[in-house]
Amino acid sequence: MKRRPLIVQKFGGTSVGTIERMQNVARLVAGEYRSGHDVVVVASAMAGETNRLIELAHLASPDPEPRELDCLLTTGEQVSVALLSMILNQMGIPARSILGFQMGMHTDTAHTKARIVALDRARFEASIDERIVLVAAGFQGIAPDGHLTTLGRGGSDTTAVAIAAELDADFCDIYTDVDGVYTADPNVCPDARRLERISYEEMLELASTGAKVLQIRSVELGMKYNVPLRVRSSFSGGPGTLVVKEEAAMEDVLVAGVACDKNEAKISLRAVADRPGMAALIFTPLAEANIVVDMIIQNVALDGTTDVTFTVPRTDLKQALAVMNRASSALGIQRIESDDRIAKISVVGVGMRSHAGVATTMFRALSDEGINIQMISTSEIKISGVIEAKDADRAQRALHAAFGLARAPSASTPRGTKPKTAVAKKGTVAKPKRGSTATKRKRAR
Amino acid sequence: MKRRPLIVQKFGGTSVGTIERMQNVARLVAGEYRSGHDVVVVASAMAGETNRLIELAHLASPDPEPRELDCLLTTGEQVSVALLSMILNQMGIPARSILGFQMGMHTDTAHTKARIVALDRARFEASIDERIVLVAAGFQGIAPDGHLTTLGRGGSDTTAVAIAAELDADFCDIYTDVDGVYTADPNVCPDARRLERISYEEMLELASTGAKVLQIRSVELGMKYNVPLRVRSSFSGGPGTLVVKEEAAMEDVLVAGVACDKNEAKISLRAVADRPGMAALIFTPLAEANIVVDMIIQNVALDGTTDVTFTVPRTDLKQALAVMNRASSALGIQRIESDDRIAKISVVGVGMRSHAGVATTMFRALSDEGINIQMISTSEIKISGVIEAKDADRAQRALHAAFGLARAPSASTPRGTKPKTAVAKKGTVAKPKRGSTATKRKRAR
Repeated sequence: MKRRPLIVQKFGGTSVGTIERMQNVARLVAGEYRSGHDVVVVASAMAGETNRLIELAHLASPDPEPRELDCLLTTGEQVSVALLSMILNQMGIPARSILGFQMGMHTDTAHTKARIVALDRARFEASIDERIVLVAAGFQGIAPDGHLTTLGRGGSDTTAVAIAAELDADFCDIYTDVDGVYTADPNVCPDARRLERISYEEMLELASTGAKVLQIRSVELGMKYNVPLRVRSSFSGGPGTLVVKEEAAMEDVLVAGVACDKNEAKISLRAVADRPGMAALIFTPLAEANIVVDMIIQNVALDGTTDVTFTVPRTDLKQALAVMNRASSALGIQRIESDDRIAKISVVGVGMRSHAGVATTMFRALSDEGINIQMISTSEIKISGVIEAKDADRAQRALHAAFGLARAPSASTPRGTKPKTAVAKKGTVAKPKRGSTATKRKRAR
Repeated sequence: MKRRPLIVQKFGGTSVGTIERMQNVARLVAGEYRSGHDVVVVASAMAGETNRLIELAHLASPDPEPRELDCLLTTGEQVSVALLSMILNQMGIPARSILGFQMGMHTDTAHTKARIVALDRARFEASIDERIVLVAAGFQGIAPDGHLTTLGRGGSDTTAVAIAAELDADFCDIYTDVDGVYTADPNVCPDARRLERISYEEMLELASTGAKVLQIRSVELGMKYNVPLRVRSSFSGGPGTLVVKEEAAMEDVLVAGVACDKNEAKISLRAVADRPGMAALIFTPLAEANIVVDMIIQNVALDGTTDVTFTVPRTDLKQALAVMNRASSALGIQRIESDDRIAKISVVGVGMRSHAGVATTMFRALSDEGINIQMISTSEIKISGVIEAKDADRAQRALHAAFGLARAPSASTPRGTKPKTAVAKKGTVAKPKRGSTATKRKRAR
């Protein structure tokens, strides 16, 4: 039997924040449906609802059980999918809500951050065959013991990608309040361009380096099951940015984009005794305190001591310093310094794999601006540098220019690729809005 | 294995209306638990929450699908049980929420008014054996197709009684904002007494005649499975009223109590052609419009026509008149009259089965007050009369006095019953609060 194209459309809390916005969402769904596509919708809780519930939980208990928190929070998505189904039916689109346990979204028992174990394709197929739009509750699953679970930060994106993977969807459209992935934050670099395409790997690096349009887990899942993701705006419409497998043409580009993360802080341990196992001794107590360390550098001095510098989320700085102070005498740390006025600036691109000189270009561009690099870290397709926070915007503009990211795709389109799909330059993610919001982490759901 | 006494405690929306009130509820639960009882709690949605959700639904659609309405409304109880479990755990009482689908509350597919088909005892037993308090979501179930259902008005009471029946609970305590069942509305009859005991049959008749402490379905279920129900106040504490099987002593009382229902309206069809099948022709269109007819009287005139008078819920009067007007020419109805300024006054008691003269006493008491009876209807244990609404309070006081309901149980306790359990007089239900609220129908959940 010939199947109609299937689109999974995911709408975040802002997109379903009011009945009026849900009506807008319903029009987007109706558009896809009436053009002949099969549609599965995934919805988050209405904006503000999850916070309201969390506040209630903290009134109820200073330390709510994760299991009960999940039971509480899943109501947010349940309300959204019921209302959205009503609106769709009212518009003449046959629609039906489906909750986590109803779709067989089986997870482990790690409440508040559960991982998906299995999803039951059969729970979707009959309705889809009947041309019913299923409106699926994001963020929620069910543990083997029958308790409700939630998938943690970005959970609704994960739900959408998992459904798209299980159903072999043609596209998984992640609707959000930005209209795609940009070569840089347009608030900082006015000539930043929306990208037509970006690879999963680049998207992952960008998500790790300050760009928060898509959550890392959903991109990982999309990459694992090769689900074509589209980042689109539920307000502006438009084609958005397609996140897909790496293509040959992508490698012809040195750098896809520039990202900046102002949410880290730096800790330096001075004159640490330089002996084997010291690093493990330093980072074990941090890990035990659930503090994620990002970059680490170590310099050996001539006197047999070493300086260790690392970055942690800025919100964890105080706790990290407390952990280090407690450990300092055992570790022989002579002095602990910290700095929360830093920014991590990154350039990302799969072209780095096969091209040299990216680091040189990056360092020279920053040097020309008189910007000092305090720490450097690299991956196969990314170079990050820690600089002073006050230099962050200037640095982004310098790098955006140095790698020629503002140029539109042109006749220099690589050979052997179709012009329509070839992408000359790819880049980073930002909100095309006011500058003050550009570096804020997006709420995950 | 010797089982501990098991109590099912049901708390309505007012009792769990805020976190503070939930903490009060948790103390009542803790009291039973710490005294050595096993406890299953059933909770309604927080007061106001169901209305908030219904308003959202009506913003979403003028005619929301019952299936999606159920998906929406069940979140109310889900929030309550999660929060209440957190509070109990915080107080050191091991507690765990359990939703309709988790407890195997299987219903039919009649969304918004589903009926229970089966309940899975096994889903409760392991936790109870571990001395965990299960906090069960009232009002909700699951249909064979996996969709969530709700049990309709008073659904949480029904949930509690069904659980108590399935688990052979020693008591099913229905906590509400009144402290028991009274011989009459204390706002109308200041000498009304709280009853210690009442029979299921009397409670059913009272629930049908204006007293709204317990919903009819939950009493029916309690009677069917012989579950001892207690009506108690979550605010005042106290023993409440026990609703149990009819006992010998109860029959020694002519009238248990007086009730008044001001929520009906009367329709009179004048000069209807008096031929067979006419009644069916009148009441079929009303049933098709889902209008419940309560009392019916018919008087045959000498000219071959008849007058038919009946009562309907006051809120349905307008629609009922429209239905009758449409049907009037086909039925040969010459004139339609209506009156919404009526009250239905009832006396209820199992003693009527074996004692004559109750009707006479009732009619004389009303006659002595100059109160005219417009319609009369009787059952085995109840006599109801329709009077003018303005006479309602005076009529209640007259009947309360005429049947001696104000007298406390005394040495006249019938032979053969233990003084402790014997009840000399039983009666009706009312809120011991301000008069204006006494006749309002309680919200069902």
